Amino acid sequence: MTTVGILGGGQLARMLALSGAPLGLRFLVMDTAPDACAGQFAPLLVGDYRDEAALAEFASKVDVATFDFENVPAESAEWLSRRVPVFPNPGALAVAQDRLVEKTLFRDLGIPVGAFADVDSLDVLRSEVERLGGACILKTRRLGYDGKGQFRIKSPADVDAAWEALGAQAATVGLIVEAFIPFERELSVVAVRSRDGEFRTWPLTENWHVDGVLSASLAPARIEDVLARAAGDYARGLAEALDYVGVFALELFLREGQWLANEMAPRVHNSGHWTIEGAETSQFQNHLRAVLGLPLGDTSVRGHACMLNWIGEMPDARAVLQESGGHWHDYGKEPRTGRKVGHATLRADDASSLAGALSRVGARLGRDTQVAPVVARLSG
Amino acid sequence: MTTVGILGGGQLARMLALSGAPLGLRFLVMDTAPDACAGQFAPLLVGDYRDEAALAEFASKVDVATFDFENVPAESAEWLSRRVPVFPNPGALAVAQDRLVEKTLFRDLGIPVGAFADVDSLDVLRSEVERLGGACILKTRRLGYDGKGQFRIKSPADVDAAWEALGAQAATVGLIVEAFIPFERELSVVAVRSRDGEFRTWPLTENWHVDGVLSASLAPARIEDVLARAAGDYARGLAEALDYVGVFALELFLREGQWLANEMAPRVHNSGHWTIEGAETSQFQNHLRAVLGLPLGDTSVRGHACMLNWIGEMPDARAVLQESGGHWHDYGKEPRTGRKVGHATLRADDASSLAGALSRVGARLGRDTQVAPVVARLSG
Ligand SMILES: Nc1ncnc2c1ncn2[C@@H]1O[C@H](COP(=O)(O)OP(=O)(O)OP(=O)(O)O)[C@@H](O)[C@H]1O
Ligand SMILES: Nc1ncnc2c1ncn2[C@@H]1O[C@H](COP(=O)(O)OP(=O)(O)OP(=O)(O)O)[C@@H](O)[C@H]1O
Repeated sequence: MTTVGILGGGQLARMLALSGAPLGLRFLVMDTAPDACAGQFAPLLVGDYRDEAALAEFASKVDVATFDFENVPAESAEWLSRRVPVFPNPGALAVAQDRLVEKTLFRDLGIPVGAFADVDSLDVLRSEVERLGGACILKTRRLGYDGKGQFRIKSPADVDAAWEALGAQAATVGLIVEAFIPFERELSVVAVRSRDGEFRTWPLTENWHVDGVLSASLAPARIEDVLARAAGDYARGLAEALDYVGVFALELFLREGQWLANEMAPRVHNSGHWTIEGAETSQFQNHLRAVLGLPLGDTSVRGHACMLNWIGEMPDARAVLQESGGHWHDYGKEPRTGRKVGHATLRADDASSLAGALSRVGARLGRDTQVAPVVARLSG
Repeated sequence: MTTVGILGGGQLARMLALSGAPLGLRFLVMDTAPDACAGQFAPLLVGDYRDEAALAEFASKVDVATFDFENVPAESAEWLSRRVPVFPNPGALAVAQDRLVEKTLFRDLGIPVGAFADVDSLDVLRSEVERLGGACILKTRRLGYDGKGQFRIKSPADVDAAWEALGAQAATVGLIVEAFIPFERELSVVAVRSRDGEFRTWPLTENWHVDGVLSASLAPARIEDVLARAAGDYARGLAEALDYVGVFALELFLREGQWLANEMAPRVHNSGHWTIEGAETSQFQNHLRAVLGLPLGDTSVRGHACMLNWIGEMPDARAVLQESGGHWHDYGKEPRTGRKVGHATLRADDASSLAGALSRVGARLGRDTQVAPVVARLSG
């Protein structure tokens, strides 16, 4: 009997546990919140990742550990990895946690990135914004997620406001300023690498964000083969450089036919949720197979799939379940503004059926604007 | 928040809970065994179905109840149904629990059945065996499963031995004698009916048994349309007669191009496990949708699927997981002779790929005889 420990007990841990049960696995989830939603289907250890006693208890009860949450302190991951195997390795996690280190690695590996600079003072910020042409985003280097810890600088006139908002964090989590990329499309490569170095990607996914949070994903993305191959090569290069084991996502902007990498997420990723019904093997199952040293499953797509995120509260399930390829995912969370509480996946054998289903669901739920860009892409 | 209560905490309850989690459901499983395997992923109430206090606690904690185990005493189901909605209804359960009542209903509904008779004494058994032509099976009317509680009578000379084995049960669970059917094939209709009377079937499944226990299932079965339609009509008629809500299986023998019904299972069924990966919606998800009054999901098949049962102990998962359409289901049970401990499903887009995968898996595991009849059917 193998017990997999998961640091973080949100929806990713929950879906990992549900997907890993058929492999005969047991789980132990660790989270600071006693109502973490993975705890509804797996034993939950309530504790802080920085608390050595809690971490020691966790370590004593698991055979291998992984993450639902990328911002687990790198030292905690290190500490743990001296006691049990931890995948992905803490070094890879540390890189992905720091936007500056991560983007520097991208550049070193030949993965194209937009211009960026480290920022440790208002003066540096001012001069870098000038150098980058005015339109920028100031971000915390670490601990950002879902667009949090970011300030959009439209022109040098916004520099003081940006420093006002985030300057205090220069000394704690660090700051990075990035040129604003007026991208046409956002896509992600969801990929998996096994303990013996086998590497697979699911078909490329196109993503739409609203207020910095993922709103919809479409797979397979409609994209030229040569671009898809390049994206897969970047992901592979990155995984090999980090000796990465498990699932990760590489988020990319597409601008004037060129890729620019945004960031990597060192875990199963929201843009891969469609794989539960839309692929032969889901990202969750393959993450566990990788972590356990089992053969990786087939990442082929089945038809076309669109994932719609539910933020804040769950809409009426019937609107989706009455569609023949309609699947529902309620994370069992309390509603709360801005919170990811669930998602739906619509699957169809052909693109036009998927567009039809999306339009109907959008109309029933009064969410036409959420489905509109996906429908437009499918019809384009 | 809706809590679904499940009487019985085996692999069926476990797969129901795993499949219902994405609907935002909570579960409470009741079983007499503290190590019931569904308890690994859902709260478990240990208690006897006949214990009113335990049943009352169960009723107080659930919004709706269903079964993983068809031999829950009908009185317990009745008692429960006066407190919470119970699906399928206790009357339908009672019919399915009694082979004599069930076969009589089949006959009344025009569903063909082999000859059978109620048996309450050795004399009756002797005369019925004569009337049925000698080759018979004596079975308990109630509480049989996986071929238990059965005695094969090859000729009238075996009557005394049969009575010796089962006669004492005439006064408790009752006995039925059935003509032995020298069938060519065994198939099952797995079907679902909703609270508002919507009825759907998955494609017909062909089944192979070894020592009275299911060994392999293949879907879709290779069968003439006219026979498949008739089988679906029988299932529909039965469901309507019983006002059945949820998933059930109708087990059929095929002999000289004619159907003969064997029995119905009033629950998700082992011959429907392939639907997890092989159909757009699984039997587990659709059972819950039916019980909750949600729209039923699409029962279309995706390609071809074969389920292999693992009895006694789990073989090596790698033999299956290295196949691109190979999926693993370990129920988390202790190994024990004759126990259903897990299954594998192999899925492929075409029949010949499925045959190839089965042959390789059979060879790797030294289980050529288990896969052979399925491979033969696929190649035939
Ligand atoms: N340099 C940029 N130029 C233009 N848009 C950007 C840039 N950086 C981020 N964005 C937009 O903001 C979104 C969120 O940014 P980013 O991925 O850096 O934040 P995050 O907090 O890590 O988000 P997530 O948790 O969703 O990955 C991006 O998906 C993109 O839409
Ligand atoms: N009348 C019959 N003639 C020939 N074979 C039979 C007959 N009845 C049962 N069998 C064989 O025995 C198997 C098990 O019988 P049956 O379905 O009645 O038992 P069970 O204990 O209810 O099994 P399960 O739990 O698998 O449904 C059947 O699938 C079939 O192979």
